[in-house]
Amino acid sequence: MEAEMSVTIAAIAGSLRAGSHSRALLRAAARDLPPDIRLAIWDGLEHVPPYNEDLEAGRAPAGVAALRRLIAGAGAGLIVPPEYNGSIPGQLKNALDWASRPRGAAALESKPTATIAATPTPRTRACALADPRKVLTVIG
Amino acid sequence: MEAEMSVTIAAIAGSLRAGSHSRALLRAAARDLPPDIRLAIWDGLEHVPPYNEDLEAGRAPAGVAALRRLIAGAGAGLIVPPEYNGSIPGQLKNALDWASRPRGAAALESKPTATIAATPTPRTRACALADPRKVLTVIG
Repeated sequence: MEAEMSVTIAAIAGSLRAGSHSRALLRAAARDLPPDIRLAIWDGLEHVPPYNEDLEAGRAPAGVAALRRLIAGAGAGLIVPPEYNGSIPGQLKNALDWASRPRGAAALESKPTATIAATPTPRTRACALADPRKVLTVIG
Repeated sequence: MEAEMSVTIAAIAGSLRAGSHSRALLRAAARDLPPDIRLAIWDGLEHVPPYNEDLEAGRAPAGVAALRRLIAGAGAGLIVPPEYNGSIPGQLKNALDWASRPRGAAALESKPTATIAATPTPRTRACALADPRKVLTVIG
């Protein structure tokens, strides 16, 4: 029955830089996992449109639908936010806001989600993690 | 010499909703200004691409260049952030991050910038304003 114990973790690096340390950290983590845990590292962040409540009534934009499928198909989430001006990158926030809707049936709601940071100092790590953790707490 | 005393304020509502309360607040404010103060309400937020440090070396994307011109041509800034999941909307954060670069010559650096919120409760106003104020403090 080992297959029942396997888990997929939806992993999102918050930077679009080709040399992103956040993505590098996820790749390093993926190499050290036990065989029953799979890290699904998302590569679609740049395709998420700006969050706009007016678009919620219609069909989800393709980049949003892909994100929601990734999270819905995972047992847990792992987010690696870089620190931009003391807070969360805008594009990562767009992704989290889309994944938090619709309320009551959102991919991210009640999904156990951890945050880690790959920034170089304790203060930038504190800044990188503070707002994403607050946002995830509000999403529930 | 009255013309020398006039000031333009670059005003940014952080929501893309057609019925945005943040933009309505800016429009209401614009109607009550003395004649020597002009509120330049920005309508280009949706055209700002995701912030990506890799794109800084080349020519700024059109939506970013327009934002930087707006801020550079204003004596002050006024930002009206809605509250999304306890924090700043991603698209507003993309705009602030682009406007914070390049370091040392950024449109937003040393620009006096105020924040006000149009959300319906004291707690959502506190959440709406906290992270944008932190980000503006870091930008300097």
